[in-house]
Amino acid sequence: MKEITGGVTAAKGYQAAGIYAGIKKKRKDLALIVSSVPAKGAGTFTTNVVKAAPVKWDMKVTKESDYVQAVILNSGVANACTGKLGDENNFIMAQEVAAALHIPTEAVYTASTGVIGKQLPIEVITAGIHEIVGELSDTLEAGSLAAESIMTTDTYPKECAVSFMVGDKEVRIGGMAKGSGMIHPNMATFLGVVTTDLAITKELLQAALSEDVKNTFNMISVDRDTSTNDSLLLLANGLAGNPEIIEMDENYDNFCKALNIVTSKLAKLMAADGEGATKLLEVTVTGAASKEEAVTLSKSIITSNLVKTALFGNDANWGRILCAMGYSGVTFDPDTVDLSIESIDGKLKLVENGMATDYSEELATKLLSAKEVKAIADVKMGSATATAWGCDFSYDYVKINADYRS
Amino acid sequence: MKEITGGVTAAKGYQAAGIYAGIKKKRKDLALIVSSVPAKGAGTFTTNVVKAAPVKWDMKVTKESDYVQAVILNSGVANACTGKLGDENNFIMAQEVAAALHIPTEAVYTASTGVIGKQLPIEVITAGIHEIVGELSDTLEAGSLAAESIMTTDTYPKECAVSFMVGDKEVRIGGMAKGSGMIHPNMATFLGVVTTDLAITKELLQAALSEDVKNTFNMISVDRDTSTNDSLLLLANGLAGNPEIIEMDENYDNFCKALNIVTSKLAKLMAADGEGATKLLEVTVTGAASKEEAVTLSKSIITSNLVKTALFGNDANWGRILCAMGYSGVTFDPDTVDLSIESIDGKLKLVENGMATDYSEELATKLLSAKEVKAIADVKMGSATATAWGCDFSYDYVKINADYRS
Repeated sequence: MKEITGGVTAAKGYQAAGIYAGIKKKRKDLALIVSSVPAKGAGTFTTNVVKAAPVKWDMKVTKESDYVQAVILNSGVANACTGKLGDENNFIMAQEVAAALHIPTEAVYTASTGVIGKQLPIEVITAGIHEIVGELSDTLEAGSLAAESIMTTDTYPKECAVSFMVGDKEVRIGGMAKGSGMIHPNMATFLGVVTTDLAITKELLQAALSEDVKNTFNMISVDRDTSTNDSLLLLANGLAGNPEIIEMDENYDNFCKALNIVTSKLAKLMAADGEGATKLLEVTVTGAASKEEAVTLSKSIITSNLVKTALFGNDANWGRILCAMGYSGVTFDPDTVDLSIESIDGKLKLVENGMATDYSEELATKLLSAKEVKAIADVKMGSATATAWGCDFSYDYVKINADYRS
Repeated sequence: MKEITGGVTAAKGYQAAGIYAGIKKKRKDLALIVSSVPAKGAGTFTTNVVKAAPVKWDMKVTKESDYVQAVILNSGVANACTGKLGDENNFIMAQEVAAALHIPTEAVYTASTGVIGKQLPIEVITAGIHEIVGELSDTLEAGSLAAESIMTTDTYPKECAVSFMVGDKEVRIGGMAKGSGMIHPNMATFLGVVTTDLAITKELLQAALSEDVKNTFNMISVDRDTSTNDSLLLLANGLAGNPEIIEMDENYDNFCKALNIVTSKLAKLMAADGEGATKLLEVTVTGAASKEEAVTLSKSIITSNLVKTALFGNDANWGRILCAMGYSGVTFDPDTVDLSIESIDGKLKLVENGMATDYSEELATKLLSAKEVKAIADVKMGSATATAWGCDFSYDYVKINADYRS
């Protein structure tokens, strides 16, 4: 199992393209991914009651369609809170792609990201679709163009690919994702597409994805705001030529491991590129009484505005970490908690049994100044552990979101 | 029932003082409130598992002491996450006040606010207590000095007082409070003291307070971080001379109404003076299926970083409000929601049945530029309603919290 270069076109039989259609002012805004043969489709979606039109459509496709073959994605407009017209525009988007590729409309996933409440400029998108099908290519560059086209406030495209063996067949998985605000996936995720040439049943594909997001995309947060558009789509077209995976055997486990490499890397990239973020925060809680409590504690820390602003200021204000654990809803004894921070420059224990150690503030500030900072809290209640990823909270988060629409 | 000038010294028999003891670098940091006669005490406290030493002490006093007579408060150091030494220092603080005033230690409430994890400079505080007892006075100015001395990042002291009649006796209630970060009270509150000269049983005093905070302090949020030190203390010394209130009669109801005037004003002042805040946001949700759901929806809106940053930018990005309602956990039909905004400059309906109205962006920006902005969302599921208070999210919140300790 090894990481390879590439994204959604890394696996066999996938083409992609990304263009400027005219939805946004300047930057690329339309992406298309196509499998040369019908693929099994799996998806996880936002738990927000307010679901964007493409989310409702994709949930239906995932449930009812035997296969999918294309994913059309736009940035600039989220097509959320847009009523019946929004649903109609979304259907037209799928229909145009289907017509151009000669596949059923029900085999087309759609995804939108951007401003909520605005209607899609459907003529612009229709024209864009006619253009983008001519640009499809199976090169890695084409995958990167697609990744670039779904960016909103992201500062760089996010891609990852892995290769692994099933028997004597090489299988590849590649994915792309976008952040970077309104990021607090819950039983779902942001906007991401992962493609693989693995042969696997639809049920096992969905099972692998649903289990995977619990430890990856559901463990990141930028701003505690769960978007209306969160979607993670996974396509498997079987072109690797392996015997189809039909049970949770060793090959299935290997696939899950490879999938985890792709999704956890994309998840970390998203956290690190959170709106206005200057650094990545990785929080591991150990010694929890249950996995669920470890998850709750670690997510409570990465979502605290006060922890995030202290991190931005390189300030070892560890009391805020204990405070965030304390209001998480998990019961523990504050007087037994140990807390350490770690970065490329070393490791430092700040708290032992709930009280400050005699640590060097200077060294603490140095560790916190790194681009990736880890915090490890041991609550000594049991043996469960969980890791969550977030980012610091800077002036730029406010700047970006105070005038997002202008 | 009418609002009067003053704070904790507005009611009969209360003296107060506020001084600079040397805990903080420059500003006043020690406050004392004393009743000339024993008073009934009631309190609500943080739900954070990590409870500061004074919170643990005050919970014991509220439960076990028949009466209280003094409240000593310091700012600068929170005395939270300080272990056994923290409890000992807190006890010394109460003991010194008790000795100076010749009252039992168990009749002294304590409160601390400031940095978590640092030990109290107990010699400084002891010396300060010896000094502050000589400064006690029943003037309104003395109450204001006390209110000033508990400030941390607050930009102004917060006081309120009300006068009402019980039979032919005038009763007064006065209070003070401090914010302004780590503010997300839950079944409890920030740091506040309310005094009254009403005669009432201890049980009814606590009942009135516990009910009151549900609609006042528990409905505000600055940053979704529930502090380790949240405490609201209510003292009733009976000096108004009314027949003691012993049942939930008309007089009790009147007291609750008067209490609500004081606490809701203090709560709104706290929200408006949230760290870095430039304006107050009042959110009312109507048409909810239950009071609980109305509370959840309104609090979800006022705590959304994306709503708060849009408000800072005077941007009518209403999709973020619907999004925050959507991930609150409450079930509703997004396609029936109405949303309006209101300020001193008028009222504007932005959303009707889940979709944008043809509103003027210019007028929306004007309304959002006011110092007090209201948002009213109707979910048309029932008849329950709730109001919550928050503030916008500015660069200064980040600035204040990135270098809070330096």
